[in-house]
Amino acid sequence: MAFDAAFSELATVLGDRLSRSKSDLDAHGGSETHFALAPPDAVAYPQSTEDVSRILAICHAHGVPVIAYGAGTSLEGHTSAIRGGVTLDFSRMADILTINQGDMDVVVQPGLTREDLNRELRATGLFFSVDPGANASVGGMAATRASGTTTVRYGTMRDNVLALQVVLADGRVIRTGTRARKSSSGYDLTGLFLGSEGTLGIITELTLRLNGQPEAISAGICAFDRMSDAVEAVVAVIQMGLPMARIEFLDADAVRAVNAYSGSEVRETPHLFVEFHGSQASVAEDAERFGEIVADFGASGVEVATKPEDRSALWTMRHHAYWACLGLKPGATAVVTDVCVPISHLAQAVEETQADIAASIIDGPILGHVGDGNFHAILLVDPAQPAELEAAKSLAARMNERALRLGGTVTGEHGIGMGKLAYMEAQHGDAWDVMTDIKTALDPKGILNPGKVVRG
Amino acid sequence: MAFDAAFSELATVLGDRLSRSKSDLDAHGGSETHFALAPPDAVAYPQSTEDVSRILAICHAHGVPVIAYGAGTSLEGHTSAIRGGVTLDFSRMADILTINQGDMDVVVQPGLTREDLNRELRATGLFFSVDPGANASVGGMAATRASGTTTVRYGTMRDNVLALQVVLADGRVIRTGTRARKSSSGYDLTGLFLGSEGTLGIITELTLRLNGQPEAISAGICAFDRMSDAVEAVVAVIQMGLPMARIEFLDADAVRAVNAYSGSEVRETPHLFVEFHGSQASVAEDAERFGEIVADFGASGVEVATKPEDRSALWTMRHHAYWACLGLKPGATAVVTDVCVPISHLAQAVEETQADIAASIIDGPILGHVGDGNFHAILLVDPAQPAELEAAKSLAARMNERALRLGGTVTGEHGIGMGKLAYMEAQHGDAWDVMTDIKTALDPKGILNPGKVVRG
Repeated sequence: MAFDAAFSELATVLGDRLSRSKSDLDAHGGSETHFALAPPDAVAYPQSTEDVSRILAICHAHGVPVIAYGAGTSLEGHTSAIRGGVTLDFSRMADILTINQGDMDVVVQPGLTREDLNRELRATGLFFSVDPGANASVGGMAATRASGTTTVRYGTMRDNVLALQVVLADGRVIRTGTRARKSSSGYDLTGLFLGSEGTLGIITELTLRLNGQPEAISAGICAFDRMSDAVEAVVAVIQMGLPMARIEFLDADAVRAVNAYSGSEVRETPHLFVEFHGSQASVAEDAERFGEIVADFGASGVEVATKPEDRSALWTMRHHAYWACLGLKPGATAVVTDVCVPISHLAQAVEETQADIAASIIDGPILGHVGDGNFHAILLVDPAQPAELEAAKSLAARMNERALRLGGTVTGEHGIGMGKLAYMEAQHGDAWDVMTDIKTALDPKGILNPGKVVRG
Repeated sequence: MAFDAAFSELATVLGDRLSRSKSDLDAHGGSETHFALAPPDAVAYPQSTEDVSRILAICHAHGVPVIAYGAGTSLEGHTSAIRGGVTLDFSRMADILTINQGDMDVVVQPGLTREDLNRELRATGLFFSVDPGANASVGGMAATRASGTTTVRYGTMRDNVLALQVVLADGRVIRTGTRARKSSSGYDLTGLFLGSEGTLGIITELTLRLNGQPEAISAGICAFDRMSDAVEAVVAVIQMGLPMARIEFLDADAVRAVNAYSGSEVRETPHLFVEFHGSQASVAEDAERFGEIVADFGASGVEVATKPEDRSALWTMRHHAYWACLGLKPGATAVVTDVCVPISHLAQAVEETQADIAASIIDGPILGHVGDGNFHAILLVDPAQPAELEAAKSLAARMNERALRLGGTVTGEHGIGMGKLAYMEAQHGDAWDVMTDIKTALDPKGILNPGKVVRG
């Protein structure tokens, strides 16, 4: 009833930019992973901040849930409309508004994808660094505080968003942050909205930090007999201050998957993939010093690639690793995990996880961002075998508990959504109540992405 | 009445660690700058998080204000007890709790000063990077989101605090963040408490990120005819990706002050001071490339120092600049400003400020962190001349308005306290209401550092 009145007002405002077709609803109610279809009651296609403000004011008046939707690449069911309502599809708010070359920042709309952004930036000599793998929208990346392969050098979304425009639950529009590089002026609302997954406000504009495209890049791989040697080598490299732009690891199972997928012949033991950005001289020196340091930890088969085509072949192996892992088990889907621990506990976390997987009925290659202590097991599941999904969920639960026991977090970069809600109490204790208090203060009617992140 | 009941309960808990002596009250009610003395009604010396929790529970029950006090180096009257209450002096909670060398982090108590921390870290090969100049306590630095000369490379407190323990207004104790390098698990409460200036909770433990001490350091200075050339040179250096560890500027007046103070003979024009951290080879190369780039922008007198004693002489000049500026006017005190703008507007902001100062009755050398767009005018005031203080305040007001007009912030690193409260509405608009809503949610009785940061 309240919903019907709201939809009739929304239709007046939005015209044919409000859709209630079943195909549209289903397309926005699904998930990349194993969550059940939960379609909204309507999909709106805002074209401006003013549109979003008017939609929110109407939904607020009627108590109708509002869910923001970017590129749909979330892995934890963030956009599932579990209590119905209106999904805001930001595909028509995907413009670059201003490139500030001298300040190395860019003002964009939330529906823009990171690949489209970097394509437009190519001629400027600048790039946007955050790379979660998927071609996510920058709004979605902000809402989940995303990161990825370049975090060890360039940081997460938390480090790369300078300012936001946000529409509050009742339709008020605010700006957080400035284009200045730093500020001590009041509470860090930019940081608060980053990672709030659409539960505190809807992001309608972002000012992103850019970096200069490096003059030169060197990359390399090396093999270790044991995971713990690889991790200790990386700790030593970090402590020496070598500025790695990327430092990734694959366990033996992941390497085997990559070999099978790409026809490569890499030795099937734990591997590190590394990349350096800088001048011709510095990246050559960095790669050489890297080789010297890791040799002390038993690395073998060190190969350095400075030619773009060799480097590209190397990172293609890494970037295809997820598909390569899926290829190990034809017809499989994956439960993807995302724990992050202090790096001194990374080897233990990985090795215990490997043993747990080995004792289970399923396979699960492991790869991750070793410089951050963040790794993913790709738990391979035959969708027709409920016992396998159960095994995967139970392995994932033990990974999460292990991460907390080791002083880490249940999600390094994918976010809470629905998939990690059950761990909020264990991870945060009374701090989860504080989050809930903040949610209540900013969204007293609970219309913003209800059922996610906080209690209730 | 309520206060008396509270103090009698506090005395029972704290014994002689609760002081009501006039000298103690006055020592905690002053300010480094021009704010009037505003002493609390009592000073407490907690020794543990449990102490703080019990104090807060008592003050919460009785509605008594609570103000956290570190090293007393704040410049904006943050610790003034303008509504009385209890000041918590953290000098007895100043220990290093755990050094995690492999993870390059350290767990400390809030009363520890950054110099004491770095002294203890010396043997580990690690250091804590944030350098606001003063020997502040890390708790105070966190509460004001401090930064300083190394921010361009190592970031602000926002980038260097991984986790906090916080006592809430009612005495509940929470933990925010983890020792993992990143997390997408719920709202970023660590970021929210950083810069909240003791208005949302009292920090009782911090986990700080450390960096490896660089193997080699090179430093240099160079002169420019015009401020705008210096700024454009720095923009070019940043875009080339040269990893400057420090990049500071002094205007001609500041150089004149330094010459007079140190007996140096630097040409009295705008100067840049730069520092690189890395390997022997990389810092030499960085300094050379820096020299090449700035030469294109008319730099002259480029001098590079790699020997520790030369480098030290150079940075001593920079570090003494504040005292050198005060030395220009015997008996003077200073109104210190702290604006931060997008770097493309920095030259304009500085030049307009210089012209404004030149047209006033006082002097004001300018120096700052050019890589961040952050600068300070040291407005020199004879305390016996009210007209000079008025002139300084009015110049400061125009600097703040100018910073906002240019897309910047009224405080890059000093915080709001009492000194910048009048600009919160102008800078944040409705977002200031959101800050106030959060304050009300977390501290409904308004006992935490009342009269600071938010409305009311």
